[in-house]
Amino acid sequence: MSIFDTTGSAQEPSSRVAFAGNRLDRQSEFRDDDCLAEALASDTMRAFAISRGRAYLRANGAGFEALHHAEQLAAFDPDLDNAILLGFSETNQPRLAVPVRLDPEELPDTVKAIDPRSIYIQGLVSVSLLGELAQATSLVAWSKTHQYCGRCGHPTRPRAGGYRRECTACDQMLFPRTDPVVIMLAVDTQSDLCLLGRSPHFPPGMYSCLAGFLEPGETIEEAVRRETHEESGIRIGRVSYHASQPWPMPHTLMIGCYGEAISTKIAMDSRELEDCRWFNRAEAAALIGRQIEGGDMRSPPPGAIAHHLIHDWLTHGS
Amino acid sequence: MSIFDTTGSAQEPSSRVAFAGNRLDRQSEFRDDDCLAEALASDTMRAFAISRGRAYLRANGAGFEALHHAEQLAAFDPDLDNAILLGFSETNQPRLAVPVRLDPEELPDTVKAIDPRSIYIQGLVSVSLLGELAQATSLVAWSKTHQYCGRCGHPTRPRAGGYRRECTACDQMLFPRTDPVVIMLAVDTQSDLCLLGRSPHFPPGMYSCLAGFLEPGETIEEAVRRETHEESGIRIGRVSYHASQPWPMPHTLMIGCYGEAISTKIAMDSRELEDCRWFNRAEAAALIGRQIEGGDMRSPPPGAIAHHLIHDWLTHGS
Repeated sequence: MSIFDTTGSAQEPSSRVAFAGNRLDRQSEFRDDDCLAEALASDTMRAFAISRGRAYLRANGAGFEALHHAEQLAAFDPDLDNAILLGFSETNQPRLAVPVRLDPEELPDTVKAIDPRSIYIQGLVSVSLLGELAQATSLVAWSKTHQYCGRCGHPTRPRAGGYRRECTACDQMLFPRTDPVVIMLAVDTQSDLCLLGRSPHFPPGMYSCLAGFLEPGETIEEAVRRETHEESGIRIGRVSYHASQPWPMPHTLMIGCYGEAISTKIAMDSRELEDCRWFNRAEAAALIGRQIEGGDMRSPPPGAIAHHLIHDWLTHGS
Repeated sequence: MSIFDTTGSAQEPSSRVAFAGNRLDRQSEFRDDDCLAEALASDTMRAFAISRGRAYLRANGAGFEALHHAEQLAAFDPDLDNAILLGFSETNQPRLAVPVRLDPEELPDTVKAIDPRSIYIQGLVSVSLLGELAQATSLVAWSKTHQYCGRCGHPTRPRAGGYRRECTACDQMLFPRTDPVVIMLAVDTQSDLCLLGRSPHFPPGMYSCLAGFLEPGETIEEAVRRETHEESGIRIGRVSYHASQPWPMPHTLMIGCYGEAISTKIAMDSRELEDCRWFNRAEAAALIGRQIEGGDMRSPPPGAIAHHLIHDWLTHGS
């Protein structure tokens, strides 16, 4: 037995999801309090402009640009006190995330305010920028909700290029937040079925994997079993990690797993789901396929970790 | 190929770490704002008493008790406004986490204030309670640092038995925080070596796996590669998830992985580590062994996820 996958797959599952592949050199160990001012003063600085979870994209004829230089950024009324240094590109360009105050309603026609999920689904920016965009929107959302100290209520100030915040009164240090969510495909290996559900807030016809926040005091595997049981009544035995995905709405880490069902009778939590059912391979394949062809039922789009969990079960699962 | 481990191991690696195995029924979907008052009024209620990250344990002759009934709890000056309903035991006892104000210095001789890590290492409470203890200390630490709204600075109030907090001014909802940390054993599969380091704050002679916080906008695998490279200069190719562990200091999720080294020359970050080196199997086995026998070099104790990563590489890795 090897501790590594020996099936020869060159690409790890986590590299195939949207928002993976962030290539920035974060240089988190070399950050001092001058690094942001230095980055802002650099001619090669490029920034994401973020407002209420949406990125401002400039139309450039053929498509959209998510990165703005200093002058372009200035037009959006940037809040430079809360700018965050994300890291450096392969050509050593400083890359920033900057909250902006210009109202989306007041944007010129050539600029669109679009959430990261829509940006990836519509392919509005290059795939290689999606990871940086996730980092940018997550950190701006975190900074926005950590302007005051949760312990004493006094204002906080940024440190280390915005990657930390520090209370001005009690010195508490605040670090970026990432919320682990388990998302799992429960599989009935005897009958070769997988379990999918739909939440009332899904687009019409969409079925996906069950998911929920990991809670304090549980392992990933325990969270998979608890969430699956709470939402569907299905008991899970073995759990197998498959892939992870940064999901910047606002700052989540999706942890994708397979769970081996050890019961089959569904008892759906109707406050969370409006349907939950077993799909055989042909049905699951149709669900994935209709994503492309259009139809009444569909899976989450390619790039979503749920899509990969279903797809990879169809391809490899036995 | 199966999506599940087919080696027939009955026990998943995550079930063998300390703080795993929390059996409480959290009933998170059935919580209303009366659930805490109902739990506090119950004769069968039992509570963990937490002060500054330490649990108050009552000596009972043979050992220690971590759970207190209402009268025992009252002696510690409990802050019941910030009590948190953890869930229900298998016999339907409400289980609470309660911050207490009695100073550890003023405790009677029969009560000790001890941090969760020491409690597990010294085996002071039953293994089956450690997961609940992790949940309790994590949630109290979170609640303590979320008494004020990070967005507007106004006080927050508990909801849903303390499992959420809500701003009294802007209505922002605050949810428990869990910080994902990647901890990894880098393995040179050609020379059959593993990479361990020691931080200056480790006990003398201790070597362990490298580790670091996962950052926004990266996958688990990317975090493993980034952290390993930052701390040791070693490049990692394939990454394989092994196990996870709740680590309540204060509210971390340890995500344990193997990483296949694709370089061998160490360039240690001397601000993070005071030593970092390759160990062959005999050396790693000695490290694990001396944990028990005493000696000048040792690994983290059994129960620590780093111990399992090293142990399981020795047992299974090839």
